[in-house]
Amino acid sequence: MELWYTEKQTENFGITAKITKTYVDEQTDFQKLDMIETEEFGTMLVLDGMVMTTVKDEFVYHEMVAHPVLFTHPNPEHVLVVGGGDGGVIREIMKHPKVKKAVLVDIDGKVIEYSKKYLPTIAGELDNPRVEVLVNDGFMHIHDHKNTYDVIMVDSTEPVGPAANLFTRGFYQGIYEALKEDGIFVAQTDNPWFKADLIQSVNKDVKEVFPIVRVYGANIPTYPSGLWTFTMGSKKYDPLQVDEASIPEISTKYYTPRLHKAAFVLPKFVEDLVK
Amino acid sequence: MELWYTEKQTENFGITAKITKTYVDEQTDFQKLDMIETEEFGTMLVLDGMVMTTVKDEFVYHEMVAHPVLFTHPNPEHVLVVGGGDGGVIREIMKHPKVKKAVLVDIDGKVIEYSKKYLPTIAGELDNPRVEVLVNDGFMHIHDHKNTYDVIMVDSTEPVGPAANLFTRGFYQGIYEALKEDGIFVAQTDNPWFKADLIQSVNKDVKEVFPIVRVYGANIPTYPSGLWTFTMGSKKYDPLQVDEASIPEISTKYYTPRLHKAAFVLPKFVEDLVK
Repeated sequence: MELWYTEKQTENFGITAKITKTYVDEQTDFQKLDMIETEEFGTMLVLDGMVMTTVKDEFVYHEMVAHPVLFTHPNPEHVLVVGGGDGGVIREIMKHPKVKKAVLVDIDGKVIEYSKKYLPTIAGELDNPRVEVLVNDGFMHIHDHKNTYDVIMVDSTEPVGPAANLFTRGFYQGIYEALKEDGIFVAQTDNPWFKADLIQSVNKDVKEVFPIVRVYGANIPTYPSGLWTFTMGSKKYDPLQVDEASIPEISTKYYTPRLHKAAFVLPKFVEDLVK
Repeated sequence: MELWYTEKQTENFGITAKITKTYVDEQTDFQKLDMIETEEFGTMLVLDGMVMTTVKDEFVYHEMVAHPVLFTHPNPEHVLVVGGGDGGVIREIMKHPKVKKAVLVDIDGKVIEYSKKYLPTIAGELDNPRVEVLVNDGFMHIHDHKNTYDVIMVDSTEPVGPAANLFTRGFYQGIYEALKEDGIFVAQTDNPWFKADLIQSVNKDVKEVFPIVRVYGANIPTYPSGLWTFTMGSKKYDPLQVDEASIPEISTKYYTPRLHKAAFVLPKFVEDLVK
């Protein structure tokens, strides 16, 4: 018997992947959590029926959340990750020696627990002494930590379920206040083919809060449309003003210093969404 | 009853799209041809079980075949398209007033016929007086036209079926000879996630024939992995030496002068395939 996992990325379109094993199939306190073994992409974490990460293509998302913003801030000592319980973004952050402490706040401890067990190549740095892991509500954590962080990364699910309030103007205002005076944040902001409205409304909201707002993209094969966007809001530093020659080469599979600015050059129809 | 078209893009992974109608389901002299109506991407042309084009996302592929090379050659008067019977690349070429004549050579007249009937927004320019449409073998056409073209575009299917000999060193040598002394060609060269070997071998072959070889990418949601590559081989002009400020704005939805060079900045793992 062949088993295939099919995700309807929209009502009328989706991806399908042959699976060989189901490790976890559980309703946590916050969401449906599935951990499955796929032939094509290796172990796959699925939350509320949406692929969150796979062993084969996870590097794209995790590198592209962490490195553009960390190579834009000249001294990112204190970093917060909201969500991201699989640990992939933390692993990338740990490649930056300037980071003294990274705090991860995920609302769902089960994501952390199962990622450590089934995704060790992704979650391995969660035990790094420079990392503090909190099982908590990111929205509240931000509210309670004013003027604390140099960089904040929002590694959330889609704006349904537990992440719904992470796509609101109030959340971006809270992030602004949790950042120091020269802080920067970045959030994953879905894809322009099926969620153009979301990208547009997030862009409008972030522009009301931050003086510098930039959008960039990356190719993630297991995410809807294969083109994912990220929105950066900054108080002072502009990622497009970074001298690429000054970016050190670190060990990556997607991000390069050459891509630092090129990733911000968007297709015309995406450019039009955010101008 | 709901009908879904599922394409296995690899043995273990694919896409699935809800369809409302099948217009054509035919074995031509060269390949299996399906024309179907999908809810998400509109009318879709499928050859040998692989999505060739859809009304919703076709602009990416067609623009990104035509414009980078046409804005690299300073005077692209005579252009050849090998394959491309749907007419999308021709439509984009017609946006360039410098082009005096574009010749399209597709081996399968049925692709042209059904595209005109079911994909009029794509095929509409096939009747432009600056266009000559030939139903013929592109490999032979190239062999018979030495020193003829300024630009050649290879808009083929995958290297199976009728396009198998369009991915050989002999074909690139033929293209070299069919080009004038300052000619350039571009070919679609599949995706780096599932076909890394193909990109690598094409790159090696083209480098043996052309002094300047460049690879760029574009996001196409209905193509495997969502990231498509294109390989350019040039006798004289380097796309990376083009002054972007001199590129005129034309009506596009994906290509922009700003993207002209940025599209050539590849993810690290793709860069490594072609260096």
